Parts: sequence; structure tokens; C-alpha cells
Amino acid sequence: MIETIKKRLGKVPSIRRLPLYLNRLIDYKNKGVLIVTSSDLAKEMGLLPVVVKKDLQLVDPPTKKRAGYQVDGTIDAIQTFLDWHKPYAAVLIGVGNLGSALLGYHGFTGINFIGAFDTDKAKIGQSIHGVPVHDWAQFASFAAKKKIDIVVLATPSEVAQKTADAVVQCPVRAIWNFTRAKLHVPAHVALQREDLSAGLAELCAKIKHNQQQ
Amino acid sequence: MIETIKKRLGKVPSIRRLPLYLNRLIDYKNKGVLIVTSSDLAKEMGLLPVVVKKDLQLVDPPTKKRAGYQVDGTIDAIQTFLDWHKPYAAVLIGVGNLGSALLGYHGFTGINFIGAFDTDKAKIGQSIHGVPVHDWAQFASFAAKKKIDIVVLATPSEVAQKTADAVVQCPVRAIWNFTRAKLHVPAHVALQREDLSAGLAELCAKIKHNQQQ
Repeated sequence: MIETIKKRLGKVPSIRRLPLYLNRLIDYKNKGVLIVTSSDLAKEMGLLPVVVKKDLQLVDPPTKKRAGYQVDGTIDAIQTFLDWHKPYAAVLIGVGNLGSALLGYHGFTGINFIGAFDTDKAKIGQSIHGVPVHDWAQFASFAAKKKIDIVVLATPSEVAQKTADAVVQCPVRAIWNFTRAKLHVPAHVALQREDLSAGLAELCAKIKHNQQQ
Repeated sequence: MIETIKKRLGKVPSIRRLPLYLNRLIDYKNKGVLIVTSSDLAKEMGLLPVVVKKDLQLVDPPTKKRAGYQVDGTIDAIQTFLDWHKPYAAVLIGVGNLGSALLGYHGFTGINFIGAFDTDKAKIGQSIHGVPVHDWAQFASFAAKKKIDIVVLATPSEVAQKTADAVVQCPVRAIWNFTRAKLHVPAHVALQREDLSAGLAELCAKIKHNQQQ
């Protein structure tokens, strides 16, 4: 059990880089390139070729002996690994600044927002980046009618757990938590916390490293 | 050289978790707790004790023989490692939805926004979450007068490189890139790209894993 958890933890950085590989490979495909080497990808992404090889091993991509990765097949392998062939149906809860930014973020290929929810009467009925904002009181009946895969949670942190408690009463598969609250949800609901200060810590470590050179 | 890069890459997940340890430890401190064990921290954060030990090794925290980590001393060790004793002076460029959300984000202990910049006349002169918005045309003269450590870049992706080119003409130490553009900057400027789809990939891998059980 512990081995499994450790193994999975070890793969997290590779998984997090998959969308970048996907973007690069789609660029190659659009340029008509059929085969790329790990060196090509490594150069473009600022990684070592050995890291690229290890990352892509995860998705078991088709290779041409010694020649490199088949562009089309590798795109397909990443999409299969992440189940991104068809976008996940997502709803946003909490249409503040961050929530609105997420609705308009152009980087998401894996999800499709089918609705947003808020308690603010001024926001209900509006359309933000093409996504209709509904009354939070209607969430349960919405969830009963539409298939929701992912709930993107961007409420104030103080009401995050209360909101999550209501969400997991409905058939949803995952909560992507942008609040600062540490949420407790049943084991059948996948949970991912997005902590912007993680990136800040990485940046500050880089600043210090630069200084020390 | 390759060894050094590999070693540093290997530490990135530990570095990214440091702000979470910091928050937990500050909670402990506020409750009057003096010593915590790796098991305590592991339980609270949903990690294995061996991961906690490895993570905190990075900052060389003071321990009481077999008893655990000194709360005060470990807070200090993390802040020293990240240079967070005094917050970094940051400016935001691009006051859209995402930029405004970043100005109001309560999770940042390591930075202090001293100003924001935009080209939009309707935004210039306003104050967003207490941070004054200036004309982008005034950036160079602002940077010459104030010490800027970190530029948080949240412009449209299409103008990101052009903006970064102007930024690096001024004395700044780092760019935290929230756009989708892959930026090229001189080696003396630290660079961190925040890719929200990395977290989405992690979540989707978890959803798939849940399914397979």
C-alpha cells in the first residue's frame, strides 16, 4: 500500500507536465511534423532528454525504432491517459474574480464549463465568458438533470467545506478546490487543491539560487 | 551539471509543499504547541511521514532528539530557505479577471503588491484590493524609483513576450508568468510559469485512478 502511494506520488511531476507535452505535440502536428525525438521536446521545454523519456513512458507512446515519437500517436496516448478525448463536464461554484478568470482561461483543453453557480442575485442570470450563472439554490436539481464530472470550487474559503458537503450529496466525480480550505470529502470523490503559493515558493527558491551563483 | 539539474528538479515537489507546512506550523504556534512530530504533520497533510521528513530535510529544521520538530525554529527555517522573512516587493502587470484575483488572493505570505499596471484608461487610477493601478507607460520610471523583486505577469498571452522584453530592461529579479506564452528572458531573471492545466491533469489522473479501483 505504502509502495503504491509512493509510486504514485513520484509520478505527479510527470503527470503535471503532460498538458505541456500535449500543447507542443499539437503545434508539431499543425506544422505537419510526423516524428519528434526526445531531444527536440527536451530543447523546446527546457528539460533534460532523460526527463522527457521518463515522463512519456507514463503514457506508453508509440515510437519508431530509434527515430523518435510518432506525433499523432503520442497525442492520442496522452489524451487516453488523462481521459481527455472528450472534455469533462465542469461547473464553477463562486463567480468572483478568480472564478470569472477560470471561466475565461484559454488553457483548459480537458474541461468544458456547462454552468456556474453563485448566491449573489446581481450575478445570477448573467453569462460570463459564455457560461450562464445560476442560483446556487438550484444546484441539486441541475446536478440531477445534467451529468457533472468536475466541480471547480472558487467560493470564499469560509464557506468552502459547507459548499463541498452539499456538492458531494449529488453525483459528481471530482472537486477542484481553488479555496484555501482543506476539504474533507468521501473517498469516491477525487480531490485536487490548487495552491498558488506552491508556485511562489518555487519561484522564490529560484531567486535565491540565482543569487547564490 | 546534469547531476545538479536533476537534483534540483527532484526537490521541486518538496519546495512546492513548503507553504503548506508553513501554514500548518503557524496554526500550531498560535495554539501554543512547541514541538510536532513528522507523524502529526503527515496526518494533517495527508502525506506519509517519510515524505514529511524528506521535505523538511531541505530546510534543515531544528529537532529535539526523537521528540520532533521545534515549531518556532522550523517556521524560521522555512522562511529562511524561501527568503520570506521580509515579503518580496511585487507588481502586477495586466489587471484583468485573473490579475484582480491575484491582487486579492489571501494565500500569499511571501509577497507584497506595491503596484499594478495596465494600458486600459478605465482601470488606470483605480485601486484594486488596495493596490493602485498605474499606466503601463509609467512602468520604467516606477521601476527606477522603487525596488521591484517580482513581476507578476497576467497580460493577454499575445503581448506577454513584448511586455517581458520591456520588464527585463528594468532592475527586476523575477517574472511569475500566468500567461500561456513560453517566455524568453535573460539568465539573471528567475522565471516561473504557472500552468493551471497542470493541476487539471493531476485531477484527471486521480479521477481515472478512482474509476479503476
